[in-house]
Amino acid sequence: MKYVDNRAEGVKIAYIGGGSRGWAWNLMSDLAMCEDMSGDVYLYDIDFEAAQHNEIIGNMYNGLEGAKSQWNYHAAKTAQEAMTGANFVVISILPGTFDEMESDVHTPEKYGIYQSVGDTSGPGGIVRAMRTIPMFEEIAGYVKQYCPDAWVINYTNPMTLCVKALYQAFPEIKAFGCCHEVFGTQKVLCTALKEFCDIEVADRSLIRVNPVGVNHFTWLTKATYLDQDLFPVYAKFAEEYAETGYTKNLDTNWMNNCFVCSQKVKLDLFRKYGWIAAAGDRHLAEFVDGSRYLKNPETVRAWGFGLTTVAFRKEDLKKRLTKSQQLMSGERELKLVPSGEEGVAQMRAILGIGGPLVTNVNIPNRGQTPNLPMGAVVETNAVFRDNEVTPVMSGEIPGEILPLISRISIEQEGISEAIANRDLDAIFEIFANDPLVTCSYDDAKKLFKEMVMNTAKYLTSYDLSKL
Amino acid sequence: MKYVDNRAEGVKIAYIGGGSRGWAWNLMSDLAMCEDMSGDVYLYDIDFEAAQHNEIIGNMYNGLEGAKSQWNYHAAKTAQEAMTGANFVVISILPGTFDEMESDVHTPEKYGIYQSVGDTSGPGGIVRAMRTIPMFEEIAGYVKQYCPDAWVINYTNPMTLCVKALYQAFPEIKAFGCCHEVFGTQKVLCTALKEFCDIEVADRSLIRVNPVGVNHFTWLTKATYLDQDLFPVYAKFAEEYAETGYTKNLDTNWMNNCFVCSQKVKLDLFRKYGWIAAAGDRHLAEFVDGSRYLKNPETVRAWGFGLTTVAFRKEDLKKRLTKSQQLMSGERELKLVPSGEEGVAQMRAILGIGGPLVTNVNIPNRGQTPNLPMGAVVETNAVFRDNEVTPVMSGEIPGEILPLISRISIEQEGISEAIANRDLDAIFEIFANDPLVTCSYDDAKKLFKEMVMNTAKYLTSYDLSKL
Amino acid sequence: MKYVDNRAEGVKIAYIGGGSRGWAWNLMSDLAMCEDMSGDVYLYDIDFEAAQHNEIIGNMYNGLEGAKSQWNYHAAKTAQEAMTGANFVVISILPGTFDEMESDVHTPEKYGIYQSVGDTSGPGGIVRAMRTIPMFEEIAGYVKQYCPDAWVINYTNPMTLCVKALYQAFPEIKAFGCCHEVFGTQKVLCTALKEFCDIEVADRSLIRVNPVGVNHFTWLTKATYLDQDLFPVYAKFAEEYAETGYTKNLDTNWMNNCFVCSQKVKLDLFRKYGWIAAAGDRHLAEFVDGSRYLKNPETVRAWGFGLTTVAFRKEDLKKRLTKSQQLMSGERELKLVPSGEEGVAQMRAILGIGGPLVTNVNIPNRGQTPNLPMGAVVETNAVFRDNEVTPVMSGEIPGEILPLISRISIEQEGISEAIANRDLDAIFEIFANDPLVTCSYDDAKKLFKEMVMNTAKYLTSYDLSKL
Amino acid sequence: MKYVDNRAEGVKIAYIGGGSRGWAWNLMSDLAMCEDMSGDVYLYDIDFEAAQHNEIIGNMYNGLEGAKSQWNYHAAKTAQEAMTGANFVVISILPGTFDEMESDVHTPEKYGIYQSVGDTSGPGGIVRAMRTIPMFEEIAGYVKQYCPDAWVINYTNPMTLCVKALYQAFPEIKAFGCCHEVFGTQKVLCTALKEFCDIEVADRSLIRVNPVGVNHFTWLTKATYLDQDLFPVYAKFAEEYAETGYTKNLDTNWMNNCFVCSQKVKLDLFRKYGWIAAAGDRHLAEFVDGSRYLKNPETVRAWGFGLTTVAFRKEDLKKRLTKSQQLMSGERELKLVPSGEEGVAQMRAILGIGGPLVTNVNIPNRGQTPNLPMGAVVETNAVFRDNEVTPVMSGEIPGEILPLISRISIEQEGISEAIANRDLDAIFEIFANDPLVTCSYDDAKKLFKEMVMNTAKYLTSYDLSKL
Repeated sequence: MKYVDNRAEGVKIAYIGGGSRGWAWNLMSDLAMCEDMSGDVYLYDIDFEAAQHNEIIGNMYNGLEGAKSQWNYHAAKTAQEAMTGANFVVISILPGTFDEMESDVHTPEKYGIYQSVGDTSGPGGIVRAMRTIPMFEEIAGYVKQYCPDAWVINYTNPMTLCVKALYQAFPEIKAFGCCHEVFGTQKVLCTALKEFCDIEVADRSLIRVNPVGVNHFTWLTKATYLDQDLFPVYAKFAEEYAETGYTKNLDTNWMNNCFVCSQKVKLDLFRKYGWIAAAGDRHLAEFVDGSRYLKNPETVRAWGFGLTTVAFRKEDLKKRLTKSQQLMSGERELKLVPSGEEGVAQMRAILGIGGPLVTNVNIPNRGQTPNLPMGAVVETNAVFRDNEVTPVMSGEIPGEILPLISRISIEQEGISEAIANRDLDAIFEIFANDPLVTCSYDDAKKLFKEMVMNTAKYLTSYDLSKL
Repeated sequence: MKYVDNRAEGVKIAYIGGGSRGWAWNLMSDLAMCEDMSGDVYLYDIDFEAAQHNEIIGNMYNGLEGAKSQWNYHAAKTAQEAMTGANFVVISILPGTFDEMESDVHTPEKYGIYQSVGDTSGPGGIVRAMRTIPMFEEIAGYVKQYCPDAWVINYTNPMTLCVKALYQAFPEIKAFGCCHEVFGTQKVLCTALKEFCDIEVADRSLIRVNPVGVNHFTWLTKATYLDQDLFPVYAKFAEEYAETGYTKNLDTNWMNNCFVCSQKVKLDLFRKYGWIAAAGDRHLAEFVDGSRYLKNPETVRAWGFGLTTVAFRKEDLKKRLTKSQQLMSGERELKLVPSGEEGVAQMRAILGIGGPLVTNVNIPNRGQTPNLPMGAVVETNAVFRDNEVTPVMSGEIPGEILPLISRISIEQEGISEAIANRDLDAIFEIFANDPLVTCSYDDAKKLFKEMVMNTAKYLTSYDLSKL
Repeated sequence: MKYVDNRAEGVKIAYIGGGSRGWAWNLMSDLAMCEDMSGDVYLYDIDFEAAQHNEIIGNMYNGLEGAKSQWNYHAAKTAQEAMTGANFVVISILPGTFDEMESDVHTPEKYGIYQSVGDTSGPGGIVRAMRTIPMFEEIAGYVKQYCPDAWVINYTNPMTLCVKALYQAFPEIKAFGCCHEVFGTQKVLCTALKEFCDIEVADRSLIRVNPVGVNHFTWLTKATYLDQDLFPVYAKFAEEYAETGYTKNLDTNWMNNCFVCSQKVKLDLFRKYGWIAAAGDRHLAEFVDGSRYLKNPETVRAWGFGLTTVAFRKEDLKKRLTKSQQLMSGERELKLVPSGEEGVAQMRAILGIGGPLVTNVNIPNRGQTPNLPMGAVVETNAVFRDNEVTPVMSGEIPGEILPLISRISIEQEGISEAIANRDLDAIFEIFANDPLVTCSYDDAKKLFKEMVMNTAKYLTSYDLSKL
Repeated sequence: MKYVDNRAEGVKIAYIGGGSRGWAWNLMSDLAMCEDMSGDVYLYDIDFEAAQHNEIIGNMYNGLEGAKSQWNYHAAKTAQEAMTGANFVVISILPGTFDEMESDVHTPEKYGIYQSVGDTSGPGGIVRAMRTIPMFEEIAGYVKQYCPDAWVINYTNPMTLCVKALYQAFPEIKAFGCCHEVFGTQKVLCTALKEFCDIEVADRSLIRVNPVGVNHFTWLTKATYLDQDLFPVYAKFAEEYAETGYTKNLDTNWMNNCFVCSQKVKLDLFRKYGWIAAAGDRHLAEFVDGSRYLKNPETVRAWGFGLTTVAFRKEDLKKRLTKSQQLMSGERELKLVPSGEEGVAQMRAILGIGGPLVTNVNIPNRGQTPNLPMGAVVETNAVFRDNEVTPVMSGEIPGEILPLISRISIEQEGISEAIANRDLDAIFEIFANDPLVTCSYDDAKKLFKEMVMNTAKYLTSYDLSKL
């Protein structure tokens, strides 16, 4: 990589999970529209063919009208090839297949446990972590070996535990986790500003927020637009829509079209605790006691959100496979559309191009949130600029929500250590104490065993005979 | 008070709740058997007649054979009379009557919530705190006014919140809370030593322990007898009795005879988490998710302990009233029996008599337990000696049990602040998130309202119209 | 104030010390060149005539070619007039006159104590703080009364103690302290980059640094240009110039022309401790033992910097008075020149104009520097944006320099409390332990008394009879 | 070791430095007078003959009238022989000979630096640490190998750094450092009580104190006798004797007879800071700026204490050699005299005999002193009982003395790391910043080099060519 006239040329990006039919295309589009960087993207995937397809699609972007930079895509056969000398490593993988996810999400239903996402916390999140963390330990090893100075950007869930695993395996790693859930809440605030103050905000990022907590259970303790405090505006919004939900102008981006929510959970949490919960309702619901928002499908419906079925995800995957074929064949037109993600903006800022960027990020707590455990991965703002991502002080989490968040963060610290030690007993104890595990202890034991055995193919580093 | 030949003469003790028919007699007996202190005990009680009865009984102790010191008992008409110039203030009160306790304990059963004690945590503990804390604020005011240098010893539940209230109302107060639950666990360890090593321990206090946590949810991170680590011994004990429970030599002291437990909860917790839970099973069960040990009466029975009914307590009170009459009339013989409590030993140590005492105590966290909130009331060892009670470092709470304890301690901090502010909304939010509140959020709301209205007579400092 | 087309109109700035003949003109020039703000500047000064002169000069800026915004200047008779409803309060005052400063700087010379600045630490800084802090307590009171939501920007020394006094007197204040010393070190790094790598940096602010420590004794633990770590470059620079000093291209800005240094102290500190000291040598020298760089005038000369005499300052003031007259009369031409200060850029960022700004600032430690005392005023980076100035985590201060910095910070905390209490004994004890006070304890006592009595006119809130 | 009728039999003590002619005899006498322990003492010394002499003398104690227990003494040829299976390891060594100490203490005098002891801090303490710490690293290795469960009691100076080195080399070690300096201050308090209140205290240990700080620079933040606060009494004492010194009833124990002080330093520090400095004046003087109490021999004399010359120590050693001969030959009578040290009392308490002991000790900071660095060795009270030595919370160090103590503790942390790394540059930087090093930086460099070369024989693990 070198700088030429304020542009970074020869940037090398390694994309782990490079066969992805979603996130990868987002990145391709954003890169093509970025005028001050160019280079190579190495796509590494256990499904090599998928990577090859993306190599084809990726290279097609260079020819599009409006493409401002040249990126050469390469399907890589080995992690070594993809990562050696990389400036950035992007990780966006599916740990296992949707069959494993099906078990994560739906097995607990037998015991009356419903999950709206099932990839972050709760039974699904914990078992998913069991197969994901060993993969991240391996990836961290590659980073150490092949590109110790690279910046590593993770999109994979469970976010907190994945980022923690990278730092545990290679403490000097320069890694962070990105998530767009806070962006969605910024959009809700834009909506409220429009509706109650008739103010049109040019971009959600102009809503300045102070996020605290852990990924997908993030809360805002400040929200400002220019000199205006947005809490009173949001309070009006809550008063108006807490009962009915807000269903106008729902986002219909590919990732969200079936993941619609009416913000009722978010507004309910605001009215109870006085602070703004900043993730989609489907995520938020999974961090409080299961009986509150996820008691049964009727309760979920009444709260105005949906349980994402894995059947849906499988169906959606088929559509995206088709889309991939169509893109490659030219049957379907490739378009340059900003994804709304910040990955490319973060890369630019890290390369020192275009000024500092202040945005939310998931990194270990060095004190930015003084009342969560030191070392736990937390979500706060950070400054991105020339070769640094430095946390901004979030301040203390307010007392109203501290017990909720602290409980989760301490449990994540525990689960992280238990999985690092491959200690099934310790994992189970935390599993059984998760807020979503509302069944009896004995049932929890049966459930855990069943979920583990369902996904045993991806749990070879554990001694399952001890179960 | 003055020192004469290594004896403390003229010690003044104010007993708040001095009409008590139980704890007060314990104290009388222990004082009579203490040879190096003498003085006056002022009994203050809203039931003045009960205090007068205890004045009579107390003075009878002086004539007993074996009494080693003279104590003059006085029923006091005012707190001022009782407390002015006191060296010690003992607080042992019933906040309200057993009718209120009946509501605390049994109203939640309508919603499927069973409580084995109902005076510390859970719905019962929280509502009890709502009427107790204002009383403690008042007592702290008296201490500040009438005897700011006195040592204040609390026996009332909810212990943690009562002690916290004293310090909040009068930060310079020299107060601590005493509880015998850890002693019971030391006795269990004696039993295990006898059974598996044939070692007879002269007194439970010779089992050296390191307690951490909060009152009634206290855990031991060390247990030693001379140079022997007792964890392996306890592990054997757990292996032998976890399934069946241990039912030999049950304690039949008046306070415990109907409060029998078979240690199954305690042993279950040990097997799960690897650390020794150090309170009676009835208390321990109330700090983990309600579905684990308290799901329904059958579950409770299967875990080998009992739900203390308030009907029983009312019946028991009648017996103690009769006993009081019989003691006064001489129909029933007064006896000098060591109570097993440590109050008098603590007073001696604080007066500088007989050397330092190291024992467990409930005081605000000044750092003795670094991973619980600073200022929260925690239970650890402390050194009692000449005019000081200084906490001993407990060390960090181990990761296995930190989430369980931390959750409780953060909630107690929250409830303490919410009650200090008489903020019904804030109280309810914590109520609804308590581990025992396994019903739905809406039901929790109904339950809270019902419990509050049942006990409204004692909640006059709250604006109940806001409910 | 209101926003019109991304411009802030009607901004009200109160300038305390508005008769200033230096800093005030800087601000006027920078404001005139700022195209997206306009409004009023109220000049408040105990020398009302000076403020009136600046009113005239300030308003002349509006007519200059190249002026991009309109600012109306007003000499204010009262703090109330200047501050009521202000959006910003700028404080740049001289506490007392140069006569007092003469005593601060030169009295200690009798005892063999030489000070190169004498306004921050050492005997001069402490006695200056004694008269400054009461003034800042008063200003904080005005802010609370007249403009509690205003942002308060301090330029007055001793910076750390002034900012601390504001927060002590009005804890909700939104105040911060600005200082250009770090900028000077960024310029040195530019020089080194040019000299050893032939890289031309467009602006010193593009050198990204991580400052830690306290004002005027700030250190850089990171310095980066794009992706390049500047420590190796600085090491070469140090090797080359540590002995001889670097004297090319000395800055000749009005503030610095007689304050020349050859960077020998800075390079010496780097070679000893391995971290980059980031203030002018004249300041740095005052924070280490007096015998090192300030033993006597010969030592100072050998280290390549100068002792600023107050005689010089008085002479300089005369020149600036003349300049003021000439500017008003038109005899001397007013010019629009960027001052190099960041005040206006900070205001813009706080108003939400032109994106976030990340720069160094002096504010209370909320944890941004975990190994300095919480609450002590520290210098680190912060994010300036829509109505917020939030500290960025600086990380822990490295062990090599922690004792040096920590000693100063703890002493500042002590002096701050001692002055708040007007406790002459406590002030003296810290005075006597300051690194510059190399004379005997008895001499220190005499010196302290002499310095206090010399400046007694400004110390009316102390009971000097106790001295 | 086994327990027989509440006695510990077969206790094995390894004495490193067992040829000692002072501390060793103290221990022998105290052991002989202890009725509830018996066993073997292995004397290990690089001077094997000295150990053999002590073997003879030690065994003679068993025959003395009044000896209550049997201890068999053995001169050990190897550390392995001495330490294998030991219950206690006592370390009391002279690092190098008095020739090295002569350099430590007297070389700095050439540069105007006077040291009253020279074994703890200042130039002498630092260079002594350079040769001592490698020895302690070696001893910690032996403990790990031969007796990992043993309790290790250190008497060697520099105490803080020696104990730190043990924990750094073997983190699981159960080590602590003992020092009698606080006892001396308790005696001063007894004197004051006698003189101003006519109260006779039976034993100095009945004065209850709360020590904070680091060894030899320890301060009392509380001092109580029974219910009496001793600060007002001490204030009277200070008022009476600060000017003249207190010279009645000076202790004439062998260790102190030439180490007389008149308490003027201690009383001066009390009057300045309001807290009781709790070490001998000779030690205290070495922790504040050299110009205060140690400027030159006249200043020292004026403060009423003496500079201990190494010539005196050499002379004294000769006397003790003669004494050793006389004791062995019977020419001089062996006597059972309590040494005033607490080593044997501590061993009893650790073995669980005779109840808990609360006394001051030097161990790593686990939070007992929250405002000194975690992990730094600090002096506070601790509870000694069955197989545990647990720190008591000292509370925060008061603001008046925090800068003084904190500076020392941070420097000790630095020196400890620098020596562990054998980093001469880092050691020198701290050396040059020590409060006693009042000479110029260049002279400090010369001095350091000279002191190191003088003692090079014992510094073989450093690369002295780098000097």
